[in-house]
Amino acid sequence: MVPRYSRPDMTAIWTPEARFRIWFEIEAHATEALADLGVVPKSAAKALWDWWATNPAIDVAAIDAIEAVTKHDVIAFLTWVAEQVGDEARFMHQGMTSSDVLDTCLSVQLVRASDILLADLDALLAAIKTRAYEHKMTPTIGRSHGIHAEPVTFGLKLAGAYAEFARCKARLEAARADIATCAVSGAVGTFANIDPAVEAHVAAKLGLTVEPVSTQVIPRDRHAMYFATLGVIASSIERLAIEVRHLQRTEVLEAEEYFSPGQKGSSAMPHKRNPVLTENLTGLARMVRSAVVPALENVALWHERDISHSSVERYIAPDATITLDFALARLTGVIDKLLVYPARMQKNLDKMGGLVHSQRVLLALTQAGVSREDSYRLVQRNAMKVWESDGELSLLELLKADTDVTAALSVAEIEDKFDLGYHLKHVDTIFARVFGE
Amino acid sequence: MVPRYSRPDMTAIWTPEARFRIWFEIEAHATEALADLGVVPKSAAKALWDWWATNPAIDVAAIDAIEAVTKHDVIAFLTWVAEQVGDEARFMHQGMTSSDVLDTCLSVQLVRASDILLADLDALLAAIKTRAYEHKMTPTIGRSHGIHAEPVTFGLKLAGAYAEFARCKARLEAARADIATCAVSGAVGTFANIDPAVEAHVAAKLGLTVEPVSTQVIPRDRHAMYFATLGVIASSIERLAIEVRHLQRTEVLEAEEYFSPGQKGSSAMPHKRNPVLTENLTGLARMVRSAVVPALENVALWHERDISHSSVERYIAPDATITLDFALARLTGVIDKLLVYPARMQKNLDKMGGLVHSQRVLLALTQAGVSREDSYRLVQRNAMKVWESDGELSLLELLKADTDVTAALSVAEIEDKFDLGYHLKHVDTIFARVFGE
Amino acid sequence: MVPRYSRPDMTAIWTPEARFRIWFEIEAHATEALADLGVVPKSAAKALWDWWATNPAIDVAAIDAIEAVTKHDVIAFLTWVAEQVGDEARFMHQGMTSSDVLDTCLSVQLVRASDILLADLDALLAAIKTRAYEHKMTPTIGRSHGIHAEPVTFGLKLAGAYAEFARCKARLEAARADIATCAVSGAVGTFANIDPAVEAHVAAKLGLTVEPVSTQVIPRDRHAMYFATLGVIASSIERLAIEVRHLQRTEVLEAEEYFSPGQKGSSAMPHKRNPVLTENLTGLARMVRSAVVPALENVALWHERDISHSSVERYIAPDATITLDFALARLTGVIDKLLVYPARMQKNLDKMGGLVHSQRVLLALTQAGVSREDSYRLVQRNAMKVWESDGELSLLELLKADTDVTAALSVAEIEDKFDLGYHLKHVDTIFARVFGE
Amino acid sequence: MVPRYSRPDMTAIWTPEARFRIWFEIEAHATEALADLGVVPKSAAKALWDWWATNPAIDVAAIDAIEAVTKHDVIAFLTWVAEQVGDEARFMHQGMTSSDVLDTCLSVQLVRASDILLADLDALLAAIKTRAYEHKMTPTIGRSHGIHAEPVTFGLKLAGAYAEFARCKARLEAARADIATCAVSGAVGTFANIDPAVEAHVAAKLGLTVEPVSTQVIPRDRHAMYFATLGVIASSIERLAIEVRHLQRTEVLEAEEYFSPGQKGSSAMPHKRNPVLTENLTGLARMVRSAVVPALENVALWHERDISHSSVERYIAPDATITLDFALARLTGVIDKLLVYPARMQKNLDKMGGLVHSQRVLLALTQAGVSREDSYRLVQRNAMKVWESDGELSLLELLKADTDVTAALSVAEIEDKFDLGYHLKHVDTIFARVFGE
Repeated sequence: MVPRYSRPDMTAIWTPEARFRIWFEIEAHATEALADLGVVPKSAAKALWDWWATNPAIDVAAIDAIEAVTKHDVIAFLTWVAEQVGDEARFMHQGMTSSDVLDTCLSVQLVRASDILLADLDALLAAIKTRAYEHKMTPTIGRSHGIHAEPVTFGLKLAGAYAEFARCKARLEAARADIATCAVSGAVGTFANIDPAVEAHVAAKLGLTVEPVSTQVIPRDRHAMYFATLGVIASSIERLAIEVRHLQRTEVLEAEEYFSPGQKGSSAMPHKRNPVLTENLTGLARMVRSAVVPALENVALWHERDISHSSVERYIAPDATITLDFALARLTGVIDKLLVYPARMQKNLDKMGGLVHSQRVLLALTQAGVSREDSYRLVQRNAMKVWESDGELSLLELLKADTDVTAALSVAEIEDKFDLGYHLKHVDTIFARVFGE
Repeated sequence: MVPRYSRPDMTAIWTPEARFRIWFEIEAHATEALADLGVVPKSAAKALWDWWATNPAIDVAAIDAIEAVTKHDVIAFLTWVAEQVGDEARFMHQGMTSSDVLDTCLSVQLVRASDILLADLDALLAAIKTRAYEHKMTPTIGRSHGIHAEPVTFGLKLAGAYAEFARCKARLEAARADIATCAVSGAVGTFANIDPAVEAHVAAKLGLTVEPVSTQVIPRDRHAMYFATLGVIASSIERLAIEVRHLQRTEVLEAEEYFSPGQKGSSAMPHKRNPVLTENLTGLARMVRSAVVPALENVALWHERDISHSSVERYIAPDATITLDFALARLTGVIDKLLVYPARMQKNLDKMGGLVHSQRVLLALTQAGVSREDSYRLVQRNAMKVWESDGELSLLELLKADTDVTAALSVAEIEDKFDLGYHLKHVDTIFARVFGE
Repeated sequence: MVPRYSRPDMTAIWTPEARFRIWFEIEAHATEALADLGVVPKSAAKALWDWWATNPAIDVAAIDAIEAVTKHDVIAFLTWVAEQVGDEARFMHQGMTSSDVLDTCLSVQLVRASDILLADLDALLAAIKTRAYEHKMTPTIGRSHGIHAEPVTFGLKLAGAYAEFARCKARLEAARADIATCAVSGAVGTFANIDPAVEAHVAAKLGLTVEPVSTQVIPRDRHAMYFATLGVIASSIERLAIEVRHLQRTEVLEAEEYFSPGQKGSSAMPHKRNPVLTENLTGLARMVRSAVVPALENVALWHERDISHSSVERYIAPDATITLDFALARLTGVIDKLLVYPARMQKNLDKMGGLVHSQRVLLALTQAGVSREDSYRLVQRNAMKVWESDGELSLLELLKADTDVTAALSVAEIEDKFDLGYHLKHVDTIFARVFGE
Repeated sequence: MVPRYSRPDMTAIWTPEARFRIWFEIEAHATEALADLGVVPKSAAKALWDWWATNPAIDVAAIDAIEAVTKHDVIAFLTWVAEQVGDEARFMHQGMTSSDVLDTCLSVQLVRASDILLADLDALLAAIKTRAYEHKMTPTIGRSHGIHAEPVTFGLKLAGAYAEFARCKARLEAARADIATCAVSGAVGTFANIDPAVEAHVAAKLGLTVEPVSTQVIPRDRHAMYFATLGVIASSIERLAIEVRHLQRTEVLEAEEYFSPGQKGSSAMPHKRNPVLTENLTGLARMVRSAVVPALENVALWHERDISHSSVERYIAPDATITLDFALARLTGVIDKLLVYPARMQKNLDKMGGLVHSQRVLLALTQAGVSREDSYRLVQRNAMKVWESDGELSLLELLKADTDVTAALSVAEIEDKFDLGYHLKHVDTIFARVFGE
C-alpha cells in the first residue's frame, strides 16, 4: 500500500483493527449458533455480545504481543478476547479452525471492498455520462492506427467508455458474488466438530452464502476470479487514461487534464502542462494487473490446503483494492474536470485537407459503376497528394480537377460527399444503445 | 499450437479455411441486409448465396497469393471471392471495414471454442461425479500443509473438484456471453456508410448480440475477460492435477494414473510409473495462464483502434483454447481411469498412531472443564511423542496413561474420541450441497 | 508458432528433424567417449558415425509411429536408429537417461537460437547507427509526458535506442552462456552408470560447459533467466516501435514507416498510411514477454525433477525465439527504411511559439538575481498565454514586452536564450559515449 | 510493504528520510561540480555541505506540506532546504531537472538494496554449504516425477541448491551493475543547461557510472532487467522451499523445519508440525515475481519520457527488494536449523524392495548380451510385482528367481548390482565442481 495512492474508506477495511472486529463478529455469531444448538451455554454468546456492546477498543499491540509468543494469530486474538470477556470466552471457537475465521473474514473484507469499488464505478459512470451528453455532437476526428480516419464525436468516445465501465461493473458484481462465501467447517471441512448450522448462521448474519465444499479453506479459484476481474477493470482504466494522454499531446491538444492555478508542470520548464494524472493511472493499472498472476498461482494449494496463498493475499488484497479504488476516483476526477477544446478538435478534423471523406467518394464511385479496384486507385492517387502536402492541398479540389473522377461523378455529387453531418447521423442510435434513453 | 496438445475439433476452428468460411457468411449476411435496405441489388446477395450453396472449396493458397500483393487480408479474400462469383460480388462489403469482418469472425470462433470447452467441462464434471459417488465414503486422510490433519473421504476431495469446475463452467458461460458480439459499423463505428440494421441482421444470423459501441473494433476488455477466465479454469486444472501427483508419490501412493500394459515409465529405470499426464497438465495450465497478461495488455488500444492486439490474438486465441480443450479432455481421462487404492488410504490414515484424532480429545477436555490452554498442552505433549516415534507409539495408549488426562476424561470417553465415523457424518450434507441430490 | 511471424533459419532449429539430428550427435559423441573408456566397443561408435556420414534422412513419421506404441520419445528414436544402424547400436545410450539427451539438445537449440538473435541484434544496431549518424544534428522537439519540452536531435533518439539494444546484446550473451550447459549424468545426476568424462566429451564437442549439478535435468533457473532476458529485449523493441508509432501520428508526422507503391492502408479509406509494422511489433513484444512467467514457474520442479516444464518449453522455446527473431528483423527493416521528415520536425519544433526555450529564460533570470520562485512565475505567466494561444503568440515577444522581465534582462539577453544551437552543443559528447568514436 | 515480511535495514532504504538524504547529496555534489566549473559560487556548495555537516533532521512533514501546495516533490524539497540553508541555496539544482535527482536517487537505492541482497545470498550460500558438507554422504532416495528413482545423497541436493544460488548471485551482480548509473543531464538529456562534467562528478561520488543517453530519465530496460533478475532469484527460493515442504510431508518426513518449544502448529489440532516457513516462502516468491511484468511494461515510455513508471516503482522497488531480503533471510534460517532425519531417509530408500537398483540390472543384462528391449522387459516384469506389493516383495529375490535373468547373470552378479555405494562414487566429483575444493 502506497499512502499517496490510497483513500481512507478502502484503507480502513484492511487495518488490523478492522480485521479483528470482523474476527470477533464471526466468533460471536458462531458462539450464538452453538448456543442455539445447545453445544455451549447461551451465557457464553451473551457474554461476548455484552462486551461487544460496550464498543471496546481493539488493543492491536496487546494481541501482537501475545502472537509473538504463540506464533499463531487467531490463538493470540482469542487469548486477548478471553482476557477481556472472562471465563465465558472459553466456549468461543468451539470445533472451529483458524481458517474458518481467517477465510470468512477475507470474504467480508473483499465484499466491503467490492461495495466501495462498485460505488466508485457508479461515480465514474455518472461523470462519463454527463460529459458524453455534453459532447454528444461535438465533432472530432476518429483515428485508427493513430492516423486520421473518419469523423466521430467526442461524446461517442465517452459513450464507448461508459459501455466499457458498465461491463466492468457487471463483472465486478459477479466477482463479488464469487467471493461472498462463508466457511465454518473445521479443520478439513468435514464439520466433524461443528454443525453445518453454525456456518449457515454466520453466513446469514454476514450477508454471505455457505461454501459448498471448504477444505479448511475457501477454494482459491474464487479469489483468482476476483483479482482477474480487478485486472480487467484496471486495463479499462488504462485505456481511457491513454486516450486522455493522447488528446493532451502538444500536437493534438483536444483535451487537457484540469490544471490548477498554483500548479507547476515541471521544475525546469515553466511552460509545461503535463497529463500526470492519466500517466499515473497508466502505472496504477499495471500494479492492479500485477495481482492477477499471483492470484492464479494461489489456486493450486496442496491437498486440503497449504498456506502459501496467505502471504500473497496480505499484499494483493489490500494493494489491489486500495489502488483500484484510488484509480477509479482519480479517473472520475479527470473526466469530471477534463478541459475539452471543441475548436481544436474541429481544427484537427480539417487538418488533412478533407482526407477523412475519402471513403465516401470511393463508395460513390463504386455506386456510379466504377470497379472497386479503379475507385480505390482514383481516390488514393489524390489522397496521397494531399497527404504529402501536409494538408495544404484539398482533396475536394483535387478530385474536382481529376477528369477520371468527374467522368463518373458530378462536382455537386463530389461536394456532397464532404458533409460532416453524414457521419453523425447514427449518434442517437448508439447513445440509445448505451444509455437506454 | 503444439500438435501433441491439440484435438481436431478445436483445431478446426482456427484453420484459414474455417476463418474464410466465417468471413464469407458475414459478408453474405451483410449483403443480404443491404439488399433488404435497397442499398445493393437483391441479385448480389443471391449470387453470393448461390455460389455458397455449391459448397465451394476455399483456395487458401490463392487468397494468400493475392494478399502477398495487396498486403491486406480482407481485400485479398474479397478479390478471390469476386473471381469466383463474378460481377455481382462488387456489392459485397459495401460501407464495411475490414474489422467488421475480422472482429465478428473472432467472436464466432471464440463462441464455437467456448461451446467445445463447455462440453469438455460437462464431460469432466460427469467423470468427477461418477468417481465422487464411487468413493463417497472411502476414508482417507485430509492434509493441511502436507501434514496429516483429520479424516475426510476421497469422495469429498472429488466433490470439491466438482464444485470448483461447476463454478468454472458458470464463469465460462459468462465469458462466452461477453465475447458473443457483432460489429458491422464501419471505419470508426459510426455507421456512416452502413445502416445499423445490417449489423443487427448479421448478429441475429450468427447468434451474436450487437456491440453497443464499436470503434472499428470490438472493445478488447471483452477478450481480456475471456482469456482471464480461461486462466482461472487452467488454474483449477492445475489444482486437481497436483492433487493426483501428490497422491501418486511413492510414499503416499493412494492413487495412480492408469498405466497401460506396453507403457515405459523411464528409458533407464524399468520400475518407474510416473504421473506424467498430470505433470503435463501442470505445464499446460501455465501455458493457458500465460495468455492472460497479453490479453490484458491488449485492452488499451490507441484512440478508436490500433492493430497491436491482432498479432497477440493470432497466437493466444488458438493456443489458449486448443490447449485448454486438450487439458480438459486429458484431465477427464485421468479422473475417469484413475486407479484408486482405498487400502493404502486406510494404511496412511492409520500411520500416525491416531494423531488425527487429537482435536476431538482437545475439545472433550475443554468441555470437561479443562482450560483451553491446558487442554492444548496436555494433548500436544502426548502427540509430540507419537510424532517423534514415527507412528510407532499410539496416541490413544499414551493418553490413557496420562493421569492429567484421565483426571478429566474416563478411558471410555477417550476411546470414544478415536472413532472414524465421527468425521464422516456430514458427508451427505456436503454432497447434497454440491450435487443437489 | 505463427507462420507469418516466422523466419526460416530460426524455425529450422525447432523442427523434429533438427531435434533428432542433435539427439543423434549427443548419443554418438557419448558412445565415442564410452568407447574411449572401454565401456563399449569402439566399433559401436564407429558404426554410428559411419551411418551418419551417409547423411541419412531422418524419418520423423517412422519415429512417431514407434513412439505411438512405446509412449516414450527417446526410446522411439533409439529404436529407429537401431533399425538403421544395426546391432552395434545396442551400445548407444549406455547408462544415460532420456533427459541427458533432451536437456542437452535443448541447450544446443537455445544456443543456436541465441546466435541468430545476436546476429539480428547486430543488424539492428547497424541500422540504428547508420540512421543515427544520418540525423545526428537533425533538430526535433524532445517531449516529456507527450508535451513539448526542449529540443533534441533525431540522431539522439536513435543513439539512445542504440545504447539500449547494445545493452540487450550484452544481456543476451550472458543468457546464452547461462543455458549453454550439457548434462550426461544419468537418472538422478549421480553418474552412477556413466563416467563424468562422457559428459565432458559431449560438452566439448557441442560447445557447451558441463552442468555442475544436474538432477536428471539441467536446472530451470537457467532457462528462466534466458526467457526473462528475451522478455526485456522484447520490451525494448516495444519502446522503439511505440516511438515510431507516435512519430507517424497524423498530427505529428515526423517520420513514417516505408509505404510501398502497391500498398493499401485500409480497405475502406484510400487515404490511410498506417504504422502497421510497429503496431505489429508492439503486439509481438507482448507475446515474447508472455513466455517469462511460465518460464519462472518452471523453476520449482519437484525433487530431482518433474516433467511439468516440458510442455511449457514445447511452446515457449520455439515461440519466443522465433517471434523475437522475426520482430528484430522487422524492426531492423523499419529503421532501415524509415521515412524521416526533418522539415516537419522543424515545423513542430517551432509550433509552440518558442515555449521550448522557457527554461533558459528562467535560468537567466535566476542568474540575474531574481529569486527562483519569482523567475518561475514570470516565465510561467507568459508561457501560459502562448500555450492558450495555440502557438499563435510568441514567447519571445511576450517576454520582451514584460517589464518585470526586462527589468532583469536586456532584450539582447532575452533573444540570446532562443538559440537552438545551445541545446545541441553536447550531441558530440553523447555520440562519443554511445558509439565510442 | 507488509511489515511482517520486512527487515529493518532494507526497509530503511525506502523511507522518505532516506530518499531526501540521497536527494540532498545529489544536489550538493552537483552544486559542488557547478562551483568548480564557475557556474555558481563556491560558497553555495560550501553552505550546503556546512549545513549537512550539522547532521540536520529531515522534516518530512514540512516537505510534504509544501508539496501539498506546489504539487511537485522536488520543488517542495528544494524549497524546504532553501528555508534551512538560506540564500545560498538558490544556486542548487541549476540546470537540472527533477528526474536527475529522482532517477539517480533510485539508482542509489537499488544499489544499496542489491548490496543487502548480495550479503543475504552470501549468508544463504554459507548455510547451504555447511549443511551440504554435513550430509555429503547421507544417502537418500532421488525422485523424479515424485516417484523413487535412484539413490543420491542429501548433500547432493544441497550442492545443487548452492550452485543455483551461486548463479543467482552472479546474476544479481550483473543486475546491480545494470542499474548503477547516474543521470544529471537536464530536461531532455541534452546537457543544454548543465555540463556533462557535473554528471561525471556526481556519479563518481556516488559510486555510479554515467548514463550514456538519458532522456530526462534513465532508460527503464535497466530496471526491467533488475526486477526480472529478482524474479528468477525468487523462483530459486521457491524451488528449495518446495523441496523442504515435500521432505516434511507426513509420509516422507525426511526433514523438518525447526519447531520451537512453545510453538503451536494449529489452533485446532495439537499434533501438527507444519512447514509454514517454506509455505510462506512459496507465497513470497510469487509476490517478488509479480514485480517482473509491470517492470517490463515500464520500459516503453513515450518519447523522451512519460511518468507512468513512477507509480509502479513506488510499489515494486520497496516491495520486491524488502520481500526478497526477508525471504532470503528466512530461507537461510530454515536451512541453518533444518532438522534432518538420515534414518528416515534410509527407511524410505529401502521402502520399495530394491526397485531403485533396477537400472543397474538392466545395464548388466545388456552388457551380458541380452538385447536392450528384452533386458527392459525382464526387469520391468519383476519391478512391477514389487511395485504392486507396496514394497513387500524384494526385487533382488525376484530377479534371483527369474530363470531368464539368471540365464544371463549369476546370482553374485545380480547381488552386486544392489550396492548403494555404487551410486555415490562421484559425489566428490560433483562437490569439487560446486565448491571448488
